[in-house]
Amino acid sequence: MSIFLRWLNVNHYSDKRVLITGGLGFIGSNLARALTLQRARVTLVDSLIPQYGGNLANVADLRDRVTINICDVRDPFAMEHLLQDQDYLFNLAGQTSHLDSMSEPHVDLDINSAAQLSILEACRKVNSAIKIVFASTRQLYGKPEYLPVDEKHPIRPVDVNGINKLAGEWYHLLYNNVYGIRASALRLTNTYGPGMRVKDARQTFLGIWVRSLIENRPIKIFGNGLQRRDFNYVDDCVNALLICGESDLSNGKIYNLGSAEFISLKDLAELMIELNHGGQFEFIPFPPERKVIDIGDYYSDFSFIERELGWQPRVDLRVGLERTLVYYRANRAKYWTKDL
Amino acid sequence: MSIFLRWLNVNHYSDKRVLITGGLGFIGSNLARALTLQRARVTLVDSLIPQYGGNLANVADLRDRVTINICDVRDPFAMEHLLQDQDYLFNLAGQTSHLDSMSEPHVDLDINSAAQLSILEACRKVNSAIKIVFASTRQLYGKPEYLPVDEKHPIRPVDVNGINKLAGEWYHLLYNNVYGIRASALRLTNTYGPGMRVKDARQTFLGIWVRSLIENRPIKIFGNGLQRRDFNYVDDCVNALLICGESDLSNGKIYNLGSAEFISLKDLAELMIELNHGGQFEFIPFPPERKVIDIGDYYSDFSFIERELGWQPRVDLRVGLERTLVYYRANRAKYWTKDL
Repeated sequence: MSIFLRWLNVNHYSDKRVLITGGLGFIGSNLARALTLQRARVTLVDSLIPQYGGNLANVADLRDRVTINICDVRDPFAMEHLLQDQDYLFNLAGQTSHLDSMSEPHVDLDINSAAQLSILEACRKVNSAIKIVFASTRQLYGKPEYLPVDEKHPIRPVDVNGINKLAGEWYHLLYNNVYGIRASALRLTNTYGPGMRVKDARQTFLGIWVRSLIENRPIKIFGNGLQRRDFNYVDDCVNALLICGESDLSNGKIYNLGSAEFISLKDLAELMIELNHGGQFEFIPFPPERKVIDIGDYYSDFSFIERELGWQPRVDLRVGLERTLVYYRANRAKYWTKDL
Repeated sequence: MSIFLRWLNVNHYSDKRVLITGGLGFIGSNLARALTLQRARVTLVDSLIPQYGGNLANVADLRDRVTINICDVRDPFAMEHLLQDQDYLFNLAGQTSHLDSMSEPHVDLDINSAAQLSILEACRKVNSAIKIVFASTRQLYGKPEYLPVDEKHPIRPVDVNGINKLAGEWYHLLYNNVYGIRASALRLTNTYGPGMRVKDARQTFLGIWVRSLIENRPIKIFGNGLQRRDFNYVDDCVNALLICGESDLSNGKIYNLGSAEFISLKDLAELMIELNHGGQFEFIPFPPERKVIDIGDYYSDFSFIERELGWQPRVDLRVGLERTLVYYRANRAKYWTKDL
């Protein structure tokens, strides 16, 4: 981690009280690790819903340095209690599966919209001095009209998840603007790395690709594999969250994350196979329920956060993927129990 | 009504089954009247929540020509039953008060977002052949970046109501795009006329202005009265709903309504006083809770619906306001019981 903390104020979070929703999840647990390095007083909230990203294995090394509170962000009383006296909220809990949002739209709404409103109402009532960083998503932009996609790109969600995440994001900005509860949003692109859900594709398709490689099964690419995407290694994403939290310049603002390296899915599969020293991929037709919500090529313009907060991704895709494969080869037993 | 039906296919809705949510409200009741003229089979759904727009007096003349079903759009079982076998849904029910959306944000979310999702899910399950026209709002645009505001203007809601209405609107387009449930949205500007809520400013400030004039109290203008707005007389709004429902060209589309006549609030107050043959206005400072959500000047570019569906507003502001004042002078007892 050390080299990536260089441009952070490394003592900023020292002794600060920090709540992370989705704290046992992929990004939340990596963020918790970085914050404990700064000796922040970290509480992790997670529902541990089996279909979601929370996994106690993600914080096995941190158990004695953080407080873990198992509860659901849909529980307004628990959240109101937990939010008291916190200096920071990194609000990462969410339902992330696009397909699940279509089959169970009300669950997605309850988590990604209604619970966000409860959290903000709780802050308004009991802790309006808190600073919030909200994890939003590039999914809001839908199928890009132009590339790279900057923050001015029209918003055009293609699934229920995108609509509900948008409402959740905008509640944050609204509470910043109307009530002065300092809040910023980061629109994350594909984030990958140790701790991501690899059981299935609910969080990122990269998870299931990593698992396939390790299980010696072919990677399945939907369509022709020419769709291009950008990726952030989780440490870069964590750094963006931290510097966004540090700065009051970020209040009321939305920033894209992204990477200057974008790559087609076919090239990505080939790169992963090279790094894995073996493996295969195959093209399969788009399942119809995925085709209707597919967004084609996507990569971000992240110059706004670069300019304002000095953030840049530092980990090459090659390096990040290698670390990820090493991690899951060593830790597969913690992430899936039985091969497919 | 007759002259305004000229460019409609006057028999289009004849014998069709039409459900109107918010059917006892201002626009819903006027729409019901127009549909019964075409001998449509109309069912009105309304919750009759006292703070909202439903009022049985609005349909006193229609009682034997429509079916009235009192229930809340938040009741998914009632809605699923009522949506079966309908040919059209004019989906007008909503929480409209900007201030109430800030003081009770979850109520606004439940009505303007969650219930809309339930309605669409019910259509998907029991009646995917239905055609839906959804009443949305220019409130989604927030404080205009340019005038007149067209449909490409960035979306930037300034209150909880705007965010939730946006989610409600987009669910409709999403279900159109993904499931082929034909749906269109009209972004209404200030609509006025007989049947509007005049008890208070929950639906439109014009209501309370009309009431003030009739009670011989001064009209209260927030700020300096230079804010400009556009207005649609309710018959024009009803016609837009009808032609939008008639056409499959409108599927999956969003159209602004609006008027070529825009006017400052001060000039509007003067016009109303002239038409009322008497009255006064006074400037009062913006209440702080209104100031933070005020949007300044607003008027729409409605050329998209003009071009595609041939809609234009036909009722001059002067004519519409005169009819409105005549109506409320004659019917005040049905709309408020005790003078302020």
